[in-house]
Amino acid sequence: MKTGNKYGTHRVIEPKGVLPQPATVVDNNMSEIYDNEILIDVDVLNIDSASFTQIKDQAKGNIEEIKSIILDIVAKQGKMKNPVTGSGGMLIGSIEKVGSALEGKINLQKGDRIATLVSLSLTPLYIEEILDIKPEIDQVKIKGKAILFESGIYAKLPTDLSETLALAVLDVCGAPAQTERLVKEGDTVVVLGAGGKSGILCCAVAKELVGENGMVIGADYSDENIERLKQVEVCHHAIKLNATDALQCYETIDKLTNGQLADVVINNVNITNTEMGSILMCKDRGTVYFFSMATSFTKAALGAEGVGKDVDMLIGNGYAMGHADMSIDILRKSEKIRKLYEELYT
Amino acid sequence: MKTGNKYGTHRVIEPKGVLPQPATVVDNNMSEIYDNEILIDVDVLNIDSASFTQIKDQAKGNIEEIKSIILDIVAKQGKMKNPVTGSGGMLIGSIEKVGSALEGKINLQKGDRIATLVSLSLTPLYIEEILDIKPEIDQVKIKGKAILFESGIYAKLPTDLSETLALAVLDVCGAPAQTERLVKEGDTVVVLGAGGKSGILCCAVAKELVGENGMVIGADYSDENIERLKQVEVCHHAIKLNATDALQCYETIDKLTNGQLADVVINNVNITNTEMGSILMCKDRGTVYFFSMATSFTKAALGAEGVGKDVDMLIGNGYAMGHADMSIDILRKSEKIRKLYEELYT
Ligand SMILES: NC(=O)c1ccc[n+]([C@@H]2O[C@H](COP(=O)([O-])OP(=O)(O)OC[C@H]3O[C@@H](n4cnc5c(N)ncnc54)[C@H](OP(=O)(O)O)[C@@H]3O)[C@@H](O)[C@H]2O)c1
Ligand SMILES: NC(=O)c1ccc[n+]([C@@H]2O[C@H](COP(=O)([O-])OP(=O)(O)OC[C@H]3O[C@@H](n4cnc5c(N)ncnc54)[C@H](OP(=O)(O)O)[C@@H]3O)[C@@H](O)[C@H]2O)c1
Repeated sequence: MKTGNKYGTHRVIEPKGVLPQPATVVDNNMSEIYDNEILIDVDVLNIDSASFTQIKDQAKGNIEEIKSIILDIVAKQGKMKNPVTGSGGMLIGSIEKVGSALEGKINLQKGDRIATLVSLSLTPLYIEEILDIKPEIDQVKIKGKAILFESGIYAKLPTDLSETLALAVLDVCGAPAQTERLVKEGDTVVVLGAGGKSGILCCAVAKELVGENGMVIGADYSDENIERLKQVEVCHHAIKLNATDALQCYETIDKLTNGQLADVVINNVNITNTEMGSILMCKDRGTVYFFSMATSFTKAALGAEGVGKDVDMLIGNGYAMGHADMSIDILRKSEKIRKLYEELYT
Repeated sequence: MKTGNKYGTHRVIEPKGVLPQPATVVDNNMSEIYDNEILIDVDVLNIDSASFTQIKDQAKGNIEEIKSIILDIVAKQGKMKNPVTGSGGMLIGSIEKVGSALEGKINLQKGDRIATLVSLSLTPLYIEEILDIKPEIDQVKIKGKAILFESGIYAKLPTDLSETLALAVLDVCGAPAQTERLVKEGDTVVVLGAGGKSGILCCAVAKELVGENGMVIGADYSDENIERLKQVEVCHHAIKLNATDALQCYETIDKLTNGQLADVVINNVNITNTEMGSILMCKDRGTVYFFSMATSFTKAALGAEGVGKDVDMLIGNGYAMGHADMSIDILRKSEKIRKLYEELYT
């Protein structure tokens, strides 16, 4: 077997010298693998929501047209990176082969069911045939193969949950894992977009950690989401708030905490212009964790400086050691969340 | 005196209900101040470099035209927020009046010389006359007045350094202050853009903190900057590196640290596409501190996930308690840095 690079640069065809993610073309020849690669027999692609929406629009909803757009992208690039949105998604499949340099080092056997947790935008993929498209859950069933690099992350699929449910949770598993690291006993924690997929998981983790002397405040925008949040009993206060209204955010949390403000603010919304609200809700020397991909770096940096707020602001890293298992465990521990997620996301 | 809002929303004219920074028009009536405001007799505006460059271009370098563009912006908005770049700058002046609600609470007397450390893009400003423009250092001498809000931050100007030198350092004082919090004894620290204004200050702080068992690696792009870096003796290794070349960054630091990589990476470059290099140089559970305003939130978040790097990534907050004094102190302690900064920035 040929010796591969940890980050997969040996598969980059164009432009030379870059990593697989920014590359425009990667090598998707699956007939032989490098010594540190994992070959996957793929059956499901979970296309990133932004990417799938764009393709659906371009195809005017026509299923055959969606198929041909996807096949065309993969044929040209050797991977499923949407050229308009730049995003990918994840995949489900079974292990077909583990490179010789990885044998004994990783806990994977031929036949194991896994989901890859690195983006499709960097994963070499070969599609033999598209079998089916499920537009309502952004899923594409295929016959095909993919390569996971040595640095690539994955999760073994649990056997006690449906694969679709597991996938939905794995998609956002970085957020609860980072929450677990940030929140301490006695903290006041505000979760913005608390009724969403990642928000509920963050609240659940925070509520367990803050204990009796702490407080978890879940904030969301619609009555429906607030209801949902109350149902699963993951916060002390479920409040209605518009995360783009910085002053409303500040005044509401100021009142609810008797002027103390939050030790930790976790931003899980899916819209722009929520940096300032997040910052104002946080006390000096507290932490604001931005999981939302709609966060603007400059708005956060200049925003905090503009109001003289001495807070630590973290960029949401989708990866944290053990994040997959700990997130799946939340569903095992809470019957209520599991039921809700089965209704909403499968 | 009328009662003002901590964040200055009482001065916002348009649109109603937002903070002074995003506002398009603020009230710059200086004839009476609110109880929590500070009135400043302004003599120098230090226009943000991006803003000044844009105005200079628009005026085709004509000084009179630059003056009229500035006067026009302030007349329309009541503040000096460049409508194209969105940025401001800072100002120098003397305290004229302190609102009644702040008396005894803050350490400022009439006549004290200060520099404001919040952006001009949110500071109510009235210009009576522009006296002089110094395009080579982005400075505008004026006769005018400004308002500092209760949440606004400032630094008293030191008497043992020239005001221009103090201003140059105050412009980037968040970076060394955050460095002081992050770096521990024995750490391996990489500073990217180490030969720049903020980079040298960060290196100086890090070198003192890592002690004998630690290592500070300063990386920059040009031979000139590497020379400069060696001259001031603030790092153990001064190396030439292109921060946009992620693989070069990784391989160089991997070799220099015997595969250990860095505990802390501080990014002080002034260009785009340096997220991935910063992430790859950092060890798992290390910290990457992005001070560069050219950082892309999504590139950092997806980049770390794509290579499975479990690092904490911080958004550079320009404000940290005590940041002004600690930065000025670096110049007092190091004759070499002080000399260099006098040559370069005054
Ligand atoms: N960093 C990473 O690695 C990573 C990985 C995956 C996802 N993400 C990001 O994380 C974010 C959340 O993902 P998710 O799957 O949890 O999304 P989600 O289920 O759509 O949750 C977002 C929540 O925010 C609420 N919201 C919308 N506008 C609001 C407002 N003005 N004020 C308060 N709440 C508001 C939404 O309410 P409605 O239902 O009424 O709209 C929803 O409950 C997204 O931006 C996503 O891109 C990051
Ligand atoms: N977060 C905040 O509150 C805040 C406040 C102020 C400034 N900043 C930001 O901090 C950054 C640095 O500010 P500064 O005043 O220190 O700037 P600076 O003096 O221009 O320093 C930048 C350094 O990066 C070097 N560089 C450029 N391209 C490089 C490359 N490809 N590889 C390695 N090094 C490279 C530059 O070298 P050359 O001299 O050869 O170009 C220079 O030495 C800026 O992005 C600025 O916007 C942030």
